[in-house]
Amino acid sequence: MIFLGLGFLFGFLKKFGFSGIAFNFLNAVIGLQWAIICDALIFKNHTETESIGINSLRKGLMSILPVLVSFGAVLGKVNPLQLVVMTILEIPAFAANRYIMTKYLSMTNHNSMMHGHIFGAYFGLAVSWSMLPPLAGNKASEENEKPTKISEMLSIFGTLFLWMFWPSYNSIMLTEPPQLRNAVYNTVFTLAASTVTVFSVSSLLNLSGKFKMANIRNAILAGGVSSGFIAYMVQHPWISMILGLLAGIISTVGFTHLQNTMNVITFVHDTCGIHYTFGMPGLLGGFAYTVIILTTETGIGISSYQAAVGISCILLTLITSVVGGMITGFLFKCQLLRPPKEWHFFHDQPYWKFHHVDSHI
Amino acid sequence: MIFLGLGFLFGFLKKFGFSGIAFNFLNAVIGLQWAIICDALIFKNHTETESIGINSLRKGLMSILPVLVSFGAVLGKVNPLQLVVMTILEIPAFAANRYIMTKYLSMTNHNSMMHGHIFGAYFGLAVSWSMLPPLAGNKASEENEKPTKISEMLSIFGTLFLWMFWPSYNSIMLTEPPQLRNAVYNTVFTLAASTVTVFSVSSLLNLSGKFKMANIRNAILAGGVSSGFIAYMVQHPWISMILGLLAGIISTVGFTHLQNTMNVITFVHDTCGIHYTFGMPGLLGGFAYTVIILTTETGIGISSYQAAVGISCILLTLITSVVGGMITGFLFKCQLLRPPKEWHFFHDQPYWKFHHVDSHI
Amino acid sequence: MIFLGLGFLFGFLKKFGFSGIAFNFLNAVIGLQWAIICDALIFKNHTETESIGINSLRKGLMSILPVLVSFGAVLGKVNPLQLVVMTILEIPAFAANRYIMTKYLSMTNHNSMMHGHIFGAYFGLAVSWSMLPPLAGNKASEENEKPTKISEMLSIFGTLFLWMFWPSYNSIMLTEPPQLRNAVYNTVFTLAASTVTVFSVSSLLNLSGKFKMANIRNAILAGGVSSGFIAYMVQHPWISMILGLLAGIISTVGFTHLQNTMNVITFVHDTCGIHYTFGMPGLLGGFAYTVIILTTETGIGISSYQAAVGISCILLTLITSVVGGMITGFLFKCQLLRPPKEWHFFHDQPYWKFHHVDSHI
Repeated sequence: MIFLGLGFLFGFLKKFGFSGIAFNFLNAVIGLQWAIICDALIFKNHTETESIGINSLRKGLMSILPVLVSFGAVLGKVNPLQLVVMTILEIPAFAANRYIMTKYLSMTNHNSMMHGHIFGAYFGLAVSWSMLPPLAGNKASEENEKPTKISEMLSIFGTLFLWMFWPSYNSIMLTEPPQLRNAVYNTVFTLAASTVTVFSVSSLLNLSGKFKMANIRNAILAGGVSSGFIAYMVQHPWISMILGLLAGIISTVGFTHLQNTMNVITFVHDTCGIHYTFGMPGLLGGFAYTVIILTTETGIGISSYQAAVGISCILLTLITSVVGGMITGFLFKCQLLRPPKEWHFFHDQPYWKFHHVDSHI
Repeated sequence: MIFLGLGFLFGFLKKFGFSGIAFNFLNAVIGLQWAIICDALIFKNHTETESIGINSLRKGLMSILPVLVSFGAVLGKVNPLQLVVMTILEIPAFAANRYIMTKYLSMTNHNSMMHGHIFGAYFGLAVSWSMLPPLAGNKASEENEKPTKISEMLSIFGTLFLWMFWPSYNSIMLTEPPQLRNAVYNTVFTLAASTVTVFSVSSLLNLSGKFKMANIRNAILAGGVSSGFIAYMVQHPWISMILGLLAGIISTVGFTHLQNTMNVITFVHDTCGIHYTFGMPGLLGGFAYTVIILTTETGIGISSYQAAVGISCILLTLITSVVGGMITGFLFKCQLLRPPKEWHFFHDQPYWKFHHVDSHI
Repeated sequence: MIFLGLGFLFGFLKKFGFSGIAFNFLNAVIGLQWAIICDALIFKNHTETESIGINSLRKGLMSILPVLVSFGAVLGKVNPLQLVVMTILEIPAFAANRYIMTKYLSMTNHNSMMHGHIFGAYFGLAVSWSMLPPLAGNKASEENEKPTKISEMLSIFGTLFLWMFWPSYNSIMLTEPPQLRNAVYNTVFTLAASTVTVFSVSSLLNLSGKFKMANIRNAILAGGVSSGFIAYMVQHPWISMILGLLAGIISTVGFTHLQNTMNVITFVHDTCGIHYTFGMPGLLGGFAYTVIILTTETGIGISSYQAAVGISCILLTLITSVVGGMITGFLFKCQLLRPPKEWHFFHDQPYWKFHHVDSHI
């Protein structure tokens, strides 16, 4: 049953080029094993009789997501060895982050996992920032960065695949059936609302009223990301829908207007726009979680305490991820890893042996 | 568990081009929300405590199918705004149709849902008929209508995906385990028989004995469509197999010989050949349902009454869908929706902003 | 639930070209029906009340795998009629093989099914050997045999799909929950270990340190194949990981160094390299099964008897498959089936009617 969860990981990979698929797959596999080992070492729960079981497999699968999200920011600018280093550093950082949250801040297992989107996004951005000179003016790289029509077709297919499995992702760690049901259909509503929003906003933002595929591809997942924290406890579908609406607007506007600006001002180059797909919707979800807890009627003292915990968890995640990402980024400059030259960016040639006739597609 | 059902919807989209995928997805999402609202308004069952739950989600998912089937007939000839209008009109028409069937004609929920194929097909054909001048002689459009090899590869992949999920689709509304098991394996047998038939017939119909991919792609689903009504109550696999055989023959012969003829005579242009994939196999399934009910031994009075109900349900569906489709088609001519010019047909250019190098693929 | 199992079959098809997909699909469907009939005739278990049920469907699905594996060896060199003949001959041969194993050698149902990889691989190789003159020196065919970048993208996608469903495949015949859980996560570990190994070895074997996609695509499944026999009874993840490591090394080294050599020396031409994906890892798995049984502490007499049974089962499978394959191969030379000329090899043209503009892609 839970192996469907794997679907979203591999669907994800489709977003990227030839070496993107393979390197992401390789690192997902390394990450899975490493995450299981890290979890076993950090959480050390002697209560379970079987040390490594189906449950740790499930947790391992979910721990890969932050790593794959981070890849989105640096994709095409690093070699496989650097990606492996990144996987090895990010997994224990995320596991430690989750350990602190569940142990000292009394977060549930499910919610600590949901911080993965935020963690992955800001980790990746920090790596990208500390690793790289800005790409502005580098024409050859920009040319390679552009998608072809077929790669966009495959990419939208990967997105649809992710879309479909998001409800399972948002409910996989829940154990009580009513919460699980709640999580599934609230996620669907949020996703649906954000999809409709994204299409409308994408059309409005273009002077000619046309759609832009890159926008849509990235932004339709924003709803799923933002509903991660709260899907299981929302009682009314309209709350999910409003959340999806907000997530869709933030994601599309951010992707259209902010990406290039941010690239120039802050020197952060974000290949796949993960800041707008995972980072900002994740923060929105965290904010929504706080609001919802404050408005429920379980005694003011308890709920304001819980809300404070929610905010401090997000702050903790942000700090851990940025610090971890910067350390990783500086390590990347080490010559031992042989970082690729700038004219190798966004190109399969350095890593693959081709015998294709049509290697230019 | 039921979210696999979504798979077939998105696999379906693959049958069409670049904007086909995105517009279908957009409308599937709008349709899902709209269907849930319509169902809640029309069926108003106060017995359930939770007004919108996992069950209404499931029904909503199944209600999208007729809309997507209808899209197949008008695809490439309408703009996204027209599609949204069509979704908004078709969903309540289908819900009303189902309401009449379940309330006054004592149809089961499952069987009323299975009329969706017929409803969708004839709704789409009626829209296509009332909307359009015939395309005969328009060479430029015909050129754009042709698939490339890669789009056919993606399309056959979508068909295989649908093929796989058809057994779940035909059993999703059933509640009793024996019926559910029956539905699953009878659907498999019908699909298998129709697939073999389609390959044979497709080869026989060509003078050179070659296969035609367009035939195969469309016709292999005919078996699944035709088994929708009866899969859960058939006791012997050979009945399913004969049904699959008939569905395969009807669908392939229809697709090869009738499509162009019908295009010229009746002025109905059917982009994806949905009449042969969904319309005629659906009617065949309804006919088989009547035959099977008449031959079972549950008292002549009861079974002939039930058979009459089955036939009247199909007639009702036909009338509702054709009337609804014609109204929608006339609305499409309204200038407010800015219908696309004929030279824009089957082209992504008017709706998408490209920055591709290879925009001609 | 079990219909996910179908996923791997259709994912598999993606490995091959245009006619590859369709012919494999056609034969999977014929094979499914034929396997159910053969099973019913050979096993004749009158204890079950329902003669053809969900269980026989499941067995039928698994019986198709050997046929599809065999196709991998002869792909592009035979016409659809020959493939149908091959399906019709191979299914009962495999069913008979399983019958002997379960009846006289007291193998479990699950384990007898797992011999399918070995059976399919050597059946295919025997067919290929007895059917064909070696292709060495035939330049035109070699040109057609080369993949394009897009077909490799689709192919790696198919492989990922198979990868995902392998754990379900290795556990589908098991009935006890602890064994089932064991099988699932041990398969994941073996697959993960073999994937990492394959990437490393593929890079090491190239002088330039680059990866070769064809290697990776074929070899990452080797782990899943080799874990088929033992996944359900391994207690420690490290055993699975070592098995994956060995399978990855054997498969990659074999694919890189042995394939061309074997092609020349033994006159066996193996289009997809199934010997290294299914044949040798399958044998490795059988060997591992023997070793594990000998090292468990269930009385020396019993375990050595069981190990002997395991070895004799593998020998039996090898003999049946090679003999069956050779008979099929000689039948292929019969002019009634109109075998394709050598210049038609690896080409869609003889079997499909195109109306594409870009038929050269």
